[in-house]
Parts: sequence; structure tokens; C-alpha cells
Amino acid sequence: MKAPLRIGIAGLGTVGAGVVKLLAEHGRLLSLRGGRSLKVVAVSARSKAKKRDIDVSGVRWERDPLALATAPDIDVVVELIGGSSGVARRLVQTALRSGKHVVTANKALLAMHGTELATLAEKRGSILAFEAAVAGGIPIIKALREGLVGNRVRRLYGILNGTCNYILTTMRETGRDFGAVLAEAQAAGYAEADPSFDVDGIDAAHKLAVLTGAAFGAKVNFAGVHVEGIRRVSAMDIQFAEELGFRIKLLGLARETRYGIEQRVHPCMVPLSAPIAHIEGVFNAVVVEGDFVGTTMFQGRGAGQGPTASAVVADLVDVARGRQMPAFVVPAERLADKKVSPMDRHQGAYYMRLMVQDKPGVIAAVSGALAKERISLEAMLQRGRSDGAVPVVLTTHETEEAAMQRALARITRLGAVAEEPCVIRIEAFQ
Amino acid sequence: MKAPLRIGIAGLGTVGAGVVKLLAEHGRLLSLRGGRSLKVVAVSARSKAKKRDIDVSGVRWERDPLALATAPDIDVVVELIGGSSGVARRLVQTALRSGKHVVTANKALLAMHGTELATLAEKRGSILAFEAAVAGGIPIIKALREGLVGNRVRRLYGILNGTCNYILTTMRETGRDFGAVLAEAQAAGYAEADPSFDVDGIDAAHKLAVLTGAAFGAKVNFAGVHVEGIRRVSAMDIQFAEELGFRIKLLGLARETRYGIEQRVHPCMVPLSAPIAHIEGVFNAVVVEGDFVGTTMFQGRGAGQGPTASAVVADLVDVARGRQMPAFVVPAERLADKKVSPMDRHQGAYYMRLMVQDKPGVIAAVSGALAKERISLEAMLQRGRSDGAVPVVLTTHETEEAAMQRALARITRLGAVAEEPCVIRIEAFQ
Repeated sequence: MKAPLRIGIAGLGTVGAGVVKLLAEHGRLLSLRGGRSLKVVAVSARSKAKKRDIDVSGVRWERDPLALATAPDIDVVVELIGGSSGVARRLVQTALRSGKHVVTANKALLAMHGTELATLAEKRGSILAFEAAVAGGIPIIKALREGLVGNRVRRLYGILNGTCNYILTTMRETGRDFGAVLAEAQAAGYAEADPSFDVDGIDAAHKLAVLTGAAFGAKVNFAGVHVEGIRRVSAMDIQFAEELGFRIKLLGLARETRYGIEQRVHPCMVPLSAPIAHIEGVFNAVVVEGDFVGTTMFQGRGAGQGPTASAVVADLVDVARGRQMPAFVVPAERLADKKVSPMDRHQGAYYMRLMVQDKPGVIAAVSGALAKERISLEAMLQRGRSDGAVPVVLTTHETEEAAMQRALARITRLGAVAEEPCVIRIEAFQ
Repeated sequence: MKAPLRIGIAGLGTVGAGVVKLLAEHGRLLSLRGGRSLKVVAVSARSKAKKRDIDVSGVRWERDPLALATAPDIDVVVELIGGSSGVARRLVQTALRSGKHVVTANKALLAMHGTELATLAEKRGSILAFEAAVAGGIPIIKALREGLVGNRVRRLYGILNGTCNYILTTMRETGRDFGAVLAEAQAAGYAEADPSFDVDGIDAAHKLAVLTGAAFGAKVNFAGVHVEGIRRVSAMDIQFAEELGFRIKLLGLARETRYGIEQRVHPCMVPLSAPIAHIEGVFNAVVVEGDFVGTTMFQGRGAGQGPTASAVVADLVDVARGRQMPAFVVPAERLADKKVSPMDRHQGAYYMRLMVQDKPGVIAAVSGALAKERISLEAMLQRGRSDGAVPVVLTTHETEEAAMQRALARITRLGAVAEEPCVIRIEAFQ
């Protein structure tokens, strides 16, 4: 048996405590599987006094997390502090520069500095592992980097934020609107007091940027992600979606177009025939379409103590087994510097809901605005009659985003259109 | 860049040709990802004359596949001959004894001799990899051995045979019976001329035995799998299942009980609320329930040239990257020799369909037989009236298999019961 793998953990929140628990509970199992024991030798967290349901009494406490990065008795630093800058970043940089391996769950850090950190790791022959950063316990980074490595990825998409999926699922099930469901989710602890990070799509975009790097062997480019959140999705649109055979999901999608790499996070109309339409509540799922493997889907819990600890420990066992790997499928210096495929050039179909004054000529004007951009209608439905505004819903055939935006501007200016139209992209699936 | 990985391929059927194609098509991509080029230096197949849509003109042809196992210019042997004995077994044994790595898609071989081959591999420090042996392109072996390595697996189950799933899906969609759908599947090339291997559950059992080894770190024990196929599933039962909120699937399941490891392949009533109920046609899916990660599901195409080649090449890239691994999660000599949990001790609920003479007292006699074994009814439905036999369907609460079998024997002997009752186990899911 080889010498123990000596671990330093920075951050003892939910995930950190989960890692300590898992390592303690499965100690024997893990040394058998990893070929050596996995031993926590030091920890660091903001408050030593805080009550935690874990036993770290025999473990060195470092007031300064950076001490873990240089301690001679530590082989691998587990970074669970979070945040794309500040301590977390310095900790990871210093640890890698000191020749230590790093395991992190920090998607924001990787989304912003993934390429730089991968380069640092490879310079010193260290492992930079981050299975826990995306989709909780689902081993999707490993799938992209290893299990599906023989494929050119055609498209990748996923439900990457459990909070948004929970809100959308609850909206659909209860018929209630975004605000009410968000408030309830906050009360239940499923959403943060400041929900922006989740509901505005930023968290999903961080994860998508990391996935894209691993799937396409490209430099991580968070700035290249087009991001829209779910605040503007209404109960009415969810209802219409169902009638049209769709379910609204916040998806993160990436694919290569002839212009470069397209990365986008936004609400999508997903046909009910697509398996991902049925991933509900706090579950996450990632679909990888490879040129040889075809369509594969991976689903599971996207967050929480157990799933995230499972992913962190999987990375630790990889380190224990000495499984050297490029962080993003190819060596860091070979990561491609791909152009961003501009959103204006996005090709796809669209759903549009208008609130219009119920009077003659409105539909003709709307259709005219679309026709002018050579956008053809797939379906249109008008519901009810009223003295006020009534909803008109339409879906288009595939067109270009720029054309759709021009038509939309024209439609919004029509006198009979009562409020800004709601537009949701329709994603095509085999 | 390191020296090329030199590959010898035995077997140039659908999968072998797929591997050659993939390696040719993605040569540059793979050397970037694997850190060295992947080079086929020799091949062997039964007929050199056979027309194939691949180019192996620059590659050495070995008449005897065993020559690949000892050739000094080969690093890794890809075994795609198939069969649990004969040439395939000798080839893998000889290659491993010669210190070569082996990549194989041969589930029968691994199911019968997995432990022995893993031991051989480790003795010489070779890699034995077999992602392609189970569930086609889905990287489930990697998930068990690495991605979910931090978990104690509570239960594992999957749709492991695409032919059976296709037949069951088509039976449900068309209302036709097993024989008719099988004949059609044979005509369409989805089922073999001799379908026994698939429809009697043997292929699924091979795969389950391999998965169980990797999930539980236990010696591969094909003989310990309880196997039933789908021949006795009737259109009528599929219909009743739907009415009761179930779908009938041929599942392979493994879990640890207090008696040992339970491995079984048989038709299951799966509640429609379980995601695996919706895996249709030739798709495969594997669900892993881990104590930390919770429930994860992996789905994709379970067979075919592209998906299987994708899995073989993923293993080759692992070999190229030098990723040494125990074949079944723990070193071969540490694989547990677990007892077989006897099927008699299986705990679960049951579906039973009887064809009974429609006369007073029959239901009372059936209920009495169940009550005698302390089996309680969950639901019972009788359909139609007739002078002949009418179906009576019942579901039970959880009971023991042995009790159910005793009750079944008693019920079968009842004068009013027209034919052998159809019994299908109901699997419980959260």
C-alpha cells in the first residue's frame, strides 16, 4: 500500500462537511479503491467556533486557508470557498504553483480563470479536477474528458441549475407566477435571499462555460455565453407551451457553428418527446450528442451535500490513483481559441406571445412584420375575445435571430400590441 | 509527444470496422487528447477477402489472431471476436500474459472469466478495459469505477438489452403479441435468427454480472444471476400494466441484501413515475443508486457500430494516457467473494394475472391461497364476463418470493384456473 494521500480542505460549509463525512464513513472502502488511504490532515474555514456535525478534532486547523497551499504535508488542496476571485483564486493559484493537486467545486472560478489554472497545473504536473463544479454528483466532466473522448461533440445541452428547474416545474404544476413561486422557494431554502445568480442564468452560464471547455477542447470563455434568465417566463407561457406540446426549461447549450462556438443559456421550448423535457424539480441533466456515440443523457441531483461530496471524492480517488489528466480534454496550451458565434447568427425556431387589442387588422400587421423578414409561421393561436388585450401565440419555422429581433421590434411598435411580446426560442431535437 | 500507441485488432465485424473508422476519422483529435497517436499496426479476422468499407491496406494482416497477443510491435490488443471461450479467451489470456493491455467488448467472456482475467492483468501491470461490453456507448463502467467511486452502491439496475426493449416497446405500441413482434424484429435485423441469447435474458445477465463486479467490488458471478426472459410477457399483461400505472421492462438488477448479493434479470413492472419506464426502443439505461450521490441515470444507444466504437476508443485513449486502473474498482485479489442472495428470499411486490372460469368462489379461493401465505392484496381487477376464462389481475404488497411461489402453486392447482398464471415482479422506486 502506498503512502496516504494527504488532503487539506478549505471551506467547511455544506459541501466541505459532506466531504469530511464521506471520507470518514467510507475510509476503508476508499483506501481499497484508491490504492492508498485518503487522509484529511488540515482544514480551514471562516469560523472555528461554528457548530458542525462533523469531527475535525484530530485535524490541524489553519486560520489562513493559504497556509494549506504551501504546507509541506499536504498533497492535494480541496477548494470549497467559492467565488471567482479573492481567497479562492489565490488559494488555487498558490497550491498549483507549489506543485499540489487541486480539487475544486468552484464553477465561477473555473468559468473566469479555467484556462489559466489548467495551464498552471500542467506546468507543475499537477492535477486540476472539478467534477463537483458542474451538475453535482453526475460524473459529466469525466464523461466528456474520458468516456466520450472518441467523439467530436455536435451539441451539448443541459439543465444546469436546480433552482430554476424547481421554479419552472412548480410554476407548471401550480399555475402560479414566477414571483410567487420564487418567494416560496426562498422560504423553503431552495432559492437564495438574493436569487439573481440562479434565476438570471449566471450560475448555469458558469457551468456551461466549463462544460464547453471540456467538450470542445476550447479555452473557457464565460464572456462568450449569451445569458438570459427565467424572470420573464409567465404562467401563461407555460400553459401555452403545454398546449403546443412543449415544456419550458432553462437550458445551457453549446455547439460549433461555422462562425465559432455558440454558448447560450436561456429559457427554451423543449418538445415533450425529448427526454430532457421530463427532468423535473431540483434534478439536473446533461445531454451530449457525439458523432459516433449518438445521443447520451446523464441525470441526477445537481446540488446538495451528498451528491457534491460524491463528486469531490471521485476526484480525490483519481488523484490517489495518480491519474494525470489534462483539465479540459487536451493539454492547456493546445486549447483552441475559438471565435464566439454571434447570437445574431443563431438559427432556430421561435415562440412568441403577444398581448393585442382584439380588433381587425392586428393579426395581418403581425404576420406582415414577420413576412417582411421572410419568417414563416408554423402555428398561430388566438384565445378568447375581450375588450382589453388578448393573447396571441405563434410559432415560427427556423430563421435567424437577427431577423427575428428586427421583426420583434416592428411588432412591439404596433399600436395594437399592448406590452412587450414574450419570445422564447424553440430548440430542435431528433 | 510520446511514441504512438500500437494497436492490434482481432475481429473486423461491425464493431471492429467502426473502431478502424473512428481511429482514422479522428486521428488528429485523438492524438491531441490522448497525448500520443493511436495507430493500428495489425488486424486479424476470419476472412481477408470479405468486402469491408474500411481501409486496412497499410496494416499487417495476421491469419492467426493469437499472433497479435505476442507480437513485439503491439502495445494493446482489441478483442472483438466474441464468445466466452475458444479463441477470444485464449487471445485475451495470452495478450495479458505477454504484458499487453487488452480492450474488449466481450461481455460473455467477462461474465464467465472476469475475475481471472482481471487477476492476470494486474499481475503484469496491464490494463483490462471493457467499457464497450455493457450498454454500448454509455460510459457506465467508468462511472462505477471512477465517477461514483465514493459511494456504496445501494442498488443498480438497467435496461441492458436493446432487442428486448425494442420488442416490449413495439408490443405496447401495437398491441401485438411477442411472437409476431419478434418475427418482425428478426426481419428488420433488430433480432438474431436465434433470438434466445437476447430474449431469454442471457445477454442482459452477462452485462449485469459485469456491472455488479464493478459496482460492488465483488468477484464476477454470472452463475449467481437469476435469469428470466420476455417470452412469457403477453400483450394482455402489457395492457393491464398500463392501466395500473406501470410499464413492463426487462431489467437487470443488483443489490446487497443481508444474505449476499442479489442479481436478477427478469421482466419488471416499473411505475410510470420512474424515469427508466420511459426508455424506449433500442435505447439502454443504467441507474445507480449511491448512498451519497442519490439516484443517477445514464442513457444512450446500447449497441451499434458508432456507440460501441466510441466505447472501445475511450478505453484506448485511457490506455494511451497511461491510466492504470483495477478492472473492477478494487484490485483483483481484493475482490469480495460474496454469497448469492437466494431468490427465495427476494422481497418485493408482485403482479399476477390469472385466467379463471367466471363462477362464484374463484376469487375467494385465490384470495385464500394468498392469505394463507400472509400475502396482502394491493389491488384486484376483473375484466368482463364470459362463459370461458376471464382475466383476473391482482397486485400484492411486499412479500417474500418463496411465499409467493407457494401461493402460486396452490392457485395453479385450483380447478377454476385455466392456465398457468402470469407473475411479474413489481420493482419499488422512490
